[in-house]
Amino acid sequence: MIDDKYEPLTIQSLPQRLKTISELTALVGTDTNSWKVEEVGDGNLNLVFIVKSPAGSAIVKQALPYVRLVGDSWPLPLYRAYFEYHALTRQASRAKGTVPKIYYFNNDQAMIIMEYLAPHKILREKLILGEKVENLTDTLGEFCANTAFRGSDLSLDTAEVKSDRALFSGNVAIPAITEGLVFCDPYFDAEMNSHTPGLEPVIKILRNDIDMKSRVQHFFRLYSAQQDTMCHGDLHSGSIMCTSSESKVIDPEFVTYAPFGFDLGMLFANFFMAFFSQPEHRTKDLETYQSWILGVVSGTWSSFEKEFTKLWNTERTGMLYPKTMFENQGHSSGKALQHLLNDIWRNSLGFCGIEMHRRCLSLAHNADFERIEDAKRRAPLEARNLMMGRELILNSEKITNTASLLKLAHKFNRENFL
Amino acid sequence: MIDDKYEPLTIQSLPQRLKTISELTALVGTDTNSWKVEEVGDGNLNLVFIVKSPAGSAIVKQALPYVRLVGDSWPLPLYRAYFEYHALTRQASRAKGTVPKIYYFNNDQAMIIMEYLAPHKILREKLILGEKVENLTDTLGEFCANTAFRGSDLSLDTAEVKSDRALFSGNVAIPAITEGLVFCDPYFDAEMNSHTPGLEPVIKILRNDIDMKSRVQHFFRLYSAQQDTMCHGDLHSGSIMCTSSESKVIDPEFVTYAPFGFDLGMLFANFFMAFFSQPEHRTKDLETYQSWILGVVSGTWSSFEKEFTKLWNTERTGMLYPKTMFENQGHSSGKALQHLLNDIWRNSLGFCGIEMHRRCLSLAHNADFERIEDAKRRAPLEARNLMMGRELILNSEKITNTASLLKLAHKFNRENFL
Repeated sequence: MIDDKYEPLTIQSLPQRLKTISELTALVGTDTNSWKVEEVGDGNLNLVFIVKSPAGSAIVKQALPYVRLVGDSWPLPLYRAYFEYHALTRQASRAKGTVPKIYYFNNDQAMIIMEYLAPHKILREKLILGEKVENLTDTLGEFCANTAFRGSDLSLDTAEVKSDRALFSGNVAIPAITEGLVFCDPYFDAEMNSHTPGLEPVIKILRNDIDMKSRVQHFFRLYSAQQDTMCHGDLHSGSIMCTSSESKVIDPEFVTYAPFGFDLGMLFANFFMAFFSQPEHRTKDLETYQSWILGVVSGTWSSFEKEFTKLWNTERTGMLYPKTMFENQGHSSGKALQHLLNDIWRNSLGFCGIEMHRRCLSLAHNADFERIEDAKRRAPLEARNLMMGRELILNSEKITNTASLLKLAHKFNRENFL
Repeated sequence: MIDDKYEPLTIQSLPQRLKTISELTALVGTDTNSWKVEEVGDGNLNLVFIVKSPAGSAIVKQALPYVRLVGDSWPLPLYRAYFEYHALTRQASRAKGTVPKIYYFNNDQAMIIMEYLAPHKILREKLILGEKVENLTDTLGEFCANTAFRGSDLSLDTAEVKSDRALFSGNVAIPAITEGLVFCDPYFDAEMNSHTPGLEPVIKILRNDIDMKSRVQHFFRLYSAQQDTMCHGDLHSGSIMCTSSESKVIDPEFVTYAPFGFDLGMLFANFFMAFFSQPEHRTKDLETYQSWILGVVSGTWSSFEKEFTKLWNTERTGMLYPKTMFENQGHSSGKALQHLLNDIWRNSLGFCGIEMHRRCLSLAHNADFERIEDAKRRAPLEARNLMMGRELILNSEKITNTASLLKLAHKFNRENFL
């Protein structure tokens, strides 16, 4: 039995402390001398160990009581492992095969033991390297559609929705990071902000745009109040691991009941940032690869739309849009579905624009831009990204399809704002 | 001490069972021989006793384990008293003086002891009798604005919002009545439906209007998912008690986190139903009194708008629309407020239209129409009400102010649909 009292694992202590967990020894055997332990947590929040032996492998993920990126000056509750575990089990049943297998959870140690994904790589790294992933849009669209639909009042008994909303309402501190860093900090001189020198003229445009800031707060209200479904909450390209043809979604500790379009918006934003950063990552096949990235955006939406429609027609057993009001009277619910999809699309664009701002202006920038060492070359690309984000926030109602969205990305990709 | 085990009170058993509750004896004295007990629960769900003595008075409200209106074939959890109690304490602190004083709560007995409001009368009765109430719009607007604003992320610390959302998520069975009877049953041939004979042509129009039904479900989604604030949940004219110049809001057992505009929409609907039913309640001063009712609708909105604006400027301490993004940068948040108010207004009209349908088509009709004994005279008035409801659901975005709304009511009041 492992201890009741929380204590962070180390490479040295892990075998001794976890050797009695049968779920782990079933994977890597009982001979701890044969275990190879490596710490690979390159994210912002947690310890992540790979445990390997000739018998097999596993991931041991343990929360730390503070934000790893910042240090113990920013405490963060260990309970996030509890919410991550509950999110993972729900995702596993709602979107089969899209998340790592979960073998064990220990609440006292804020620890989850799960499948070691190999030879998967973080998608963001692949995007920086110019690698393509087959079937990516199918997996992402299906993940988003299945988790969105099956976690909502379109599908579940509403008592279950209400009970899960209550459960995930306890996850206060982790969504608070999103509330602050995503929806507020980019738009004023917040303490933890940083940005590439040279971006000041663009930042001034954003912070002086009262209409845009008002829209940002409208989307913030939706994020905080419109609890359509259980969202991943942090679905960026660093939360996706891929081989050349298989993708898995990881790290749902930001899980929260939020609008249907929230995860899609975060995803789109991270693909657009990959898109805008490409000119500094390659010259060969630049346009081809950029087009491939944009195709991931449109393909993910198409796949989402297709899967959501399928679920609408086959699994609409929740209290919303009941068949008694449509099909059972010989009335098509197609228009109702279209209105709902339009609403999801529009909101996803708003969330997308805000995430595009956040990753260049507040804490936790992303590698797509950060790997560009020369700030003078980075700034103009980030400026395109920031200005397109503004456009999406202001005009999400007017961009009615993926073709218009992609056209916009091409347009901003040609502009010089500095 | 009263029993742990739940048992409904009767006029006979009440004194003996409650005589040791000091909060009650402080009001009506310890001499139970001097107590006069009367049962006055004319609503659909609960036992309501008035306890009077020469020393004073109190209301004892006790939940029954079934829907009183229907009987024990429709069980309903006793826990609703718990949610009503928590709603009342929050309303009392957020909108001072607008709800009865609460003296005692007993969870086992699902019982609340509260202020006996006298000589207050149910507002619906006054509207049927043609009585005016001074200050009504101020009280209603302030109640709606204060409870909406102060129960939301515009004002509270978000941890408190999330914790209250979780608490009220437990109130499954009571909002379920709204979910079924309000948002679904009117639009198909549901088991518990009833309607005035002769309305069939209008009902056919409603049930064949796929666009309208799709909008109804959009508003249902908002009701169920958009948890802006703690709403009363059932704010009709039967939940308001008035003297000629003072009004109090009662019966918040349908409490639920819902959109800002939900309570306003329910209110408006009940005033419109009072308005449309008037021709069968009086001939003298008909137009004057109808105009007074419409003035209550516009006045309630104006009072809401004024109070909400005051709170926006003086108590905006929650995470939404932070001053760091507006005032602290020398930027007005006035436009952001206007957008939010527009959104609240539009949604309130949608909810209003749906409530107007529900009260004539599904279970729990209201006395405004039911007191009209002659179905032939009732039907044409209900038809006006139903058709205006449809207009509101379909065109809530296009009716931009109270003047247009009132004009619409006058227009439908002149029409004949049967």
